[in-house]
Amino acid sequence: MKTLRVETAEPYEILIEGGLLTELPEDLPRVINTRKLALITDETVKELITEDLARILEEAGFETKVFSFPAGEASKRMETVVELARSMVRAGFDRKCVVLGVGGGVVGDMAGFLASIYMRGVPYIQVPTTLLAQVDSSVGGKTGVDLPEGKNLLGTFYQPKRVYIDYGVLASLPWEQFRNGLAEVVKYGCIWDRRLFEFLENRSQLLFLYDPDTLEHIICESCRIKAEVVSQDEREAGLRRVLNFGHTLGHALEAALDYEILHGEAVSVGMVAAARLSEALGVAEEPVAERIEALLERLGLPVRFPKEVSAEKLLRFLASDKKVWHGRLTMVLLKRIGEFAFYENPPVEKIMEVLEKL
Amino acid sequence: MKTLRVETAEPYEILIEGGLLTELPEDLPRVINTRKLALITDETVKELITEDLARILEEAGFETKVFSFPAGEASKRMETVVELARSMVRAGFDRKCVVLGVGGGVVGDMAGFLASIYMRGVPYIQVPTTLLAQVDSSVGGKTGVDLPEGKNLLGTFYQPKRVYIDYGVLASLPWEQFRNGLAEVVKYGCIWDRRLFEFLENRSQLLFLYDPDTLEHIICESCRIKAEVVSQDEREAGLRRVLNFGHTLGHALEAALDYEILHGEAVSVGMVAAARLSEALGVAEEPVAERIEALLERLGLPVRFPKEVSAEKLLRFLASDKKVWHGRLTMVLLKRIGEFAFYENPPVEKIMEVLEKL
Repeated sequence: MKTLRVETAEPYEILIEGGLLTELPEDLPRVINTRKLALITDETVKELITEDLARILEEAGFETKVFSFPAGEASKRMETVVELARSMVRAGFDRKCVVLGVGGGVVGDMAGFLASIYMRGVPYIQVPTTLLAQVDSSVGGKTGVDLPEGKNLLGTFYQPKRVYIDYGVLASLPWEQFRNGLAEVVKYGCIWDRRLFEFLENRSQLLFLYDPDTLEHIICESCRIKAEVVSQDEREAGLRRVLNFGHTLGHALEAALDYEILHGEAVSVGMVAAARLSEALGVAEEPVAERIEALLERLGLPVRFPKEVSAEKLLRFLASDKKVWHGRLTMVLLKRIGEFAFYENPPVEKIMEVLEKL
Repeated sequence: MKTLRVETAEPYEILIEGGLLTELPEDLPRVINTRKLALITDETVKELITEDLARILEEAGFETKVFSFPAGEASKRMETVVELARSMVRAGFDRKCVVLGVGGGVVGDMAGFLASIYMRGVPYIQVPTTLLAQVDSSVGGKTGVDLPEGKNLLGTFYQPKRVYIDYGVLASLPWEQFRNGLAEVVKYGCIWDRRLFEFLENRSQLLFLYDPDTLEHIICESCRIKAEVVSQDEREAGLRRVLNFGHTLGHALEAALDYEILHGEAVSVGMVAAARLSEALGVAEEPVAERIEALLERLGLPVRFPKEVSAEKLLRFLASDKKVWHGRLTMVLLKRIGEFAFYENPPVEKIMEVLEKL
């Protein structure tokens, strides 16, 4: 087992191990002092994991109840949060309960938000069950829901009491979900840690086999890197933007495809584009694009924009992103593998040039 | 002008003065660094105060927009918060804006909640315009909305950057709104500060005339007392319950009348009942009930339960309150004017006896 301490105002620990879920009954009392647990999950994860977890906890004397909602981003709305809260009140959950979020990113965002506002805040325990959620949302405390006007427009910063990462559950989920998370791991390597990048290059075969040591290492390193970045910038003013590597163009692609693409896939292409732009602008001090592209391809991730999306369309979405940031578009580029550089307002022609070649 | 510093994790100041609203343009830049203000208010206060305030701010170069909702507790729902948030997004308010709540308790609860979740939190400025909101919600950081299942079930603890209390606006509101707030001021005197209680006894005539010095004093003392209590108990575990003096039976009365009674009126009767119970149980070391009753009557507040509410009915609502607290009902009683005592599970017969006489 690996343990990672996250130094927020109230520090918490991330525990990482295969089969960890069976250890929750023993470990939970170390961080919470109630036995009343609301398990928040989506209907897919409920069948696969949450009901079993509830049973394990019940057998150990916890009082549990599973509250679920339909899987998918469409559920990530305030109406769902209100429905969950009402069900909890009717089931007798008072402010002495604990919320456990069991699932992927959407579940984590919603369960954390619910915990942060239920009776003005109850303790929150995070059980991310997709690789993306494990390496991305275990650190940072971001919670929230979408509005029709945009994503994550309502939410809070709310830290969990503990995060349990059981990578044993990953093999039970579709491979594309796993690949989706790998894109973020590659990102951490690109911006922060050459050794992690090289580890991925050397271990792709073991990844495909869900090798425990390999998984433990990449999850732990990803969380460690994110924790390092976030602890230096808790409210998202500066450094934290480095986590947007590949995301600026990735978001434009997601929007252009009306979110009919997995986040990790969009980020994958976005990273290739950002790497090429780093070279085109002379920021890169070594070749980066080809190497990143090779790794992503080996991991089964896309490295080209889909044909139906034109460079012009992407630029339009990029421009609307820019408007949101008061006319300043800061892109994350690479000096070399493992070292980033911020770049303000890269010239449109250069972006266009790169996009057209992809 | 009086200034009161509230020592929360991020300390803030409460400014108290007649005519203070006209000083906002000059003072705001001391606590916020944006000129984009969302003024959240209800439709009644909008006409009376908020539109004028917006004009003053606009003239001083702030960019303001007023977002309003129908007055009354019925608006205190998540749907209203979502509607306000959507309007703000459409009007171009990003995370660099500031939310100003202008109004009574409902506006304060909702505006504070909105500020705490809008784009994961934007700065909040509080402008309470009723006496009740000025002496009660300026301190404590409680925000929230109701669910059909109960009041204040969703919310956050969120501290304002500054609170502006302009008691000059009080005379423009109905007298019963003013009286409603006076009940809470009496409460602070009863539980914490004999001098404040005696000040009220001596100054009731001046209160009726909205005498500035008198108002400034009672508002400042009330906020000071609440700040003292809350700073010793930020998350409501212990001491803070002292603020429930008169509220236990007051809430039962509100529930029995389906909230067709002003909060302050219910608390007024509740305080008389709690004082009588203090005597009946031998907790009071001096006569308290008659003196409290006399002051409340002089202030125009009710001191008897309405005939249509039976003692049995009140006890039923009290019992359901008790269930919420895991079978433990802690009542706040008085040793003497200005000194409280907690009392666990007072015998039902004694409560019945007191209720029947009222």
